[in-house]
Amino acid sequence: MSQTTVDIVIFGGGGDLSLRKLMPALYRAHVNQELDKSIRIIATLRSVSNSADNGRDEFVNRIKQALQKHLQAQEFNPGHWQAFSERLCVVGLDIVDTNKGWPELSALLSLSDNTPLFYFALPPSVYGTACENLAEHNLIHPDARVVLEKPIGYDRESAEQINNKVGEYFPEANIYRIDHYLGKETVQNLMVLRFSNYLFEQLWDSKSIDHVQITLSETVGLEGRAGFYDNAGAVRDMVQNHLLQLLCLVAMEPASKLCAKEIRAEKIKVLNALRPLTGDDIKQNTVRGQYGFGVVSGCEQRGYLDELGNPTSTTETFVAIRAHIDNWRWAGVPFYLRTGKCLQQRYSEIVIQYKPVSHRVFCEDAGELCSNRLVVRLQPDENIQLELMTKDLERTDVHLQKMSLNLNEGSKQPSNIRDAYKRILLDAVRGDSTLFTHRDEVDASWKWLDPMLDYWQKSKDSPVEYSAGTWGPTEADQLLKKDGAIWRNPKNGEQSQ
Amino acid sequence: MSQTTVDIVIFGGGGDLSLRKLMPALYRAHVNQELDKSIRIIATLRSVSNSADNGRDEFVNRIKQALQKHLQAQEFNPGHWQAFSERLCVVGLDIVDTNKGWPELSALLSLSDNTPLFYFALPPSVYGTACENLAEHNLIHPDARVVLEKPIGYDRESAEQINNKVGEYFPEANIYRIDHYLGKETVQNLMVLRFSNYLFEQLWDSKSIDHVQITLSETVGLEGRAGFYDNAGAVRDMVQNHLLQLLCLVAMEPASKLCAKEIRAEKIKVLNALRPLTGDDIKQNTVRGQYGFGVVSGCEQRGYLDELGNPTSTTETFVAIRAHIDNWRWAGVPFYLRTGKCLQQRYSEIVIQYKPVSHRVFCEDAGELCSNRLVVRLQPDENIQLELMTKDLERTDVHLQKMSLNLNEGSKQPSNIRDAYKRILLDAVRGDSTLFTHRDEVDASWKWLDPMLDYWQKSKDSPVEYSAGTWGPTEADQLLKKDGAIWRNPKNGEQSQ
Repeated sequence: MSQTTVDIVIFGGGGDLSLRKLMPALYRAHVNQELDKSIRIIATLRSVSNSADNGRDEFVNRIKQALQKHLQAQEFNPGHWQAFSERLCVVGLDIVDTNKGWPELSALLSLSDNTPLFYFALPPSVYGTACENLAEHNLIHPDARVVLEKPIGYDRESAEQINNKVGEYFPEANIYRIDHYLGKETVQNLMVLRFSNYLFEQLWDSKSIDHVQITLSETVGLEGRAGFYDNAGAVRDMVQNHLLQLLCLVAMEPASKLCAKEIRAEKIKVLNALRPLTGDDIKQNTVRGQYGFGVVSGCEQRGYLDELGNPTSTTETFVAIRAHIDNWRWAGVPFYLRTGKCLQQRYSEIVIQYKPVSHRVFCEDAGELCSNRLVVRLQPDENIQLELMTKDLERTDVHLQKMSLNLNEGSKQPSNIRDAYKRILLDAVRGDSTLFTHRDEVDASWKWLDPMLDYWQKSKDSPVEYSAGTWGPTEADQLLKKDGAIWRNPKNGEQSQ
Repeated sequence: MSQTTVDIVIFGGGGDLSLRKLMPALYRAHVNQELDKSIRIIATLRSVSNSADNGRDEFVNRIKQALQKHLQAQEFNPGHWQAFSERLCVVGLDIVDTNKGWPELSALLSLSDNTPLFYFALPPSVYGTACENLAEHNLIHPDARVVLEKPIGYDRESAEQINNKVGEYFPEANIYRIDHYLGKETVQNLMVLRFSNYLFEQLWDSKSIDHVQITLSETVGLEGRAGFYDNAGAVRDMVQNHLLQLLCLVAMEPASKLCAKEIRAEKIKVLNALRPLTGDDIKQNTVRGQYGFGVVSGCEQRGYLDELGNPTSTTETFVAIRAHIDNWRWAGVPFYLRTGKCLQQRYSEIVIQYKPVSHRVFCEDAGELCSNRLVVRLQPDENIQLELMTKDLERTDVHLQKMSLNLNEGSKQPSNIRDAYKRILLDAVRGDSTLFTHRDEVDASWKWLDPMLDYWQKSKDSPVEYSAGTWGPTEADQLLKKDGAIWRNPKNGEQSQ
């Protein structure tokens, strides 16, 4: 573990990510006494002048308002806020102008021996410039760390450029690429379940598992991110990072030790074992969709093209992929990946579908015999359900009954523990890179996805239209039906706890 | 399924078993509308005169009082009692005197076309005479059934005599040997769990299971059964029937269909595969004990010899056995069996102890890694717990935590459903013999136990004394320690739900 006495410098401190996610996470860590007393939180933003103090006060007040808005009601407390705000420093700084604010930042950092932890809450296009300016002002100590927000790049080539550029200034070991999905306690619990239970570790392969489903389903549409999103689409926005990272954690071989280096190595092996999808394979194994008009959660939703104001866009807002991992463990096991906007419910979930029992010993009257499933729910709540068959104890005869066991039961932790950003930030503070993404992972992900994106761009087909508020195009159901599988869609109003 | 319109004749209707178990079970079945309207309940007892009606009324009143005592408060209801009592017939009858009451019973049965179901709540020594008298009065229709209470016999030879005698009058298919342990819903749920869940059926053998424990622990001493018990001892009273039956259900191969005939065949195969214990093997693999003075549940308890009033008895009140099943599935897996009187807590439990995970991937700080266990609790409450490891979600770092999942959760059935006697009686009424014991099972059990009982009788060793209120002799702990195993003793005051 590296030094934990850091100063956290948030570039883009006034942006949405900073106010909605990072500040609440840091506030919670502060309240929970998880931040060393010496740690300062330095927010840089362009719009503040370093000479006049009123700009600073105004910004600190904005942070306060953001906390009051994004924390739960009982979490905000004037006393804690007072102590938290004493950690806050504000620097008016222009990322691309080496004179504007950089000297002030340098002076501020020199007041402490703390290692700087630079958080780039910035568009990747200015990562390079930011690094140059850090270097010019001698701010990159040998231990200095940098945290990068996804997505890294637009394709394999652009990702490589970004990683090369940042790599000129920071050694890979000090670069923390965030995927906040990996900060969810339940994702880590999935690893614990896999590797600490004989019942699971013994049955985690193609002999026992029929298929795996990973769904990241959103109900929102463009939400004002039209410019960014239309250039990206569902694959770049969700598959390249979150979906493939989750796939890696499900599929990876047990490392010798669960440490950063070994987990990364195992994840990269999974990505490299993904069966390449090229040419006709893409048509057979993927479905891309674009939402049309519909009703989501009782509200009318315009179609994507209408919302975008561009009737010719072929950007996918939905994608379903049947992937295969060509290695010994997973030969023949489909991994069904799915993500989309304007779907019926917001939820993220991993489903491990076990094979059926070898033989049915029960008479036909005894009812349906469902195969076991492990359902790892990441959003909107976090829990893990194990679906088993038991006897219906309310009947005298042997009658089968499906039951769901909650594996998170008994851990009624306060909601602030569930803050994935807090978890991830504290890991970066501690210098624990287990849950961050290595550049080789970024590269391997793009390497697998680039042909798909190319193929779509070159093809004359448009994405299939699906009505907003449904579960996406019916073609996505067909994709599984070929294998005899079916998507697990939560029922309307289903309450998982 | 056979005819379900039967008349239930309870020989020994005034005895403890009838009043404490059978009548409450029948009353519950009646209230639950599980008994056909035509079914009569005919209780025979010696002390009633068939000419005077007051003896009958007095006995019916005793049944009423017994129900009020042994049912739960809200279960007894005057309206239900009124209807239930209309099913009741009382016959003054002497089992061994062919003239006393037998003609009256015959006349009573001839009033209905119902098949008679004879329940022998009698000492096995008069089974033969009872059969003779039934035959003499032409009461054994081709479909007539007989229900026998355990224990059948004192050793292999005496059991064979009893079974032969009853077999002269009833075909084996119409003989229902009761083991009320098998009537527990949880025992049947164990079968459902094994055979309807991939996660269990795949890991139910020597590759996955380290060992199995079956404990039937009592807190009571002789309870006025001194004469019977000193002639029997723990092996005859508990091991020959209950313990070995439970062992069979855990160990049996999956039948092609879960029907009576196939289950019996599989159980017999298990009993025949028990590794014979003879000579020195008995010394190495068994521990027998006899309780001395101690404190049980806060009350002083006299030692067995003192309570019995015979200082020379070598009857065992505790026995622990390490058994092996010499077949493909269970090679090398010890089955530890244990039962005793005056132990610390009353409970019955089957523990399936899985092997440890192949390799620990967690750092040492991450806490203890316990192996998975399936704990099937039969008494005092019924439930099935699955012990898994999870991440302690209240901690940020990866810390392992043991959790118990209740597999009966969500089945909050009324307590009357849990009446094992009701279940078993209704099966006999329906002619479903799945949960009853075939004579070959009785024979195979004695065949395995006879050498042990002989050896003890001939040896000069006395049973080891243990203090009442403990978990039995320390030698029983040593028995497991040799294999690196340890008894699962519930903690004082442990609440399983």
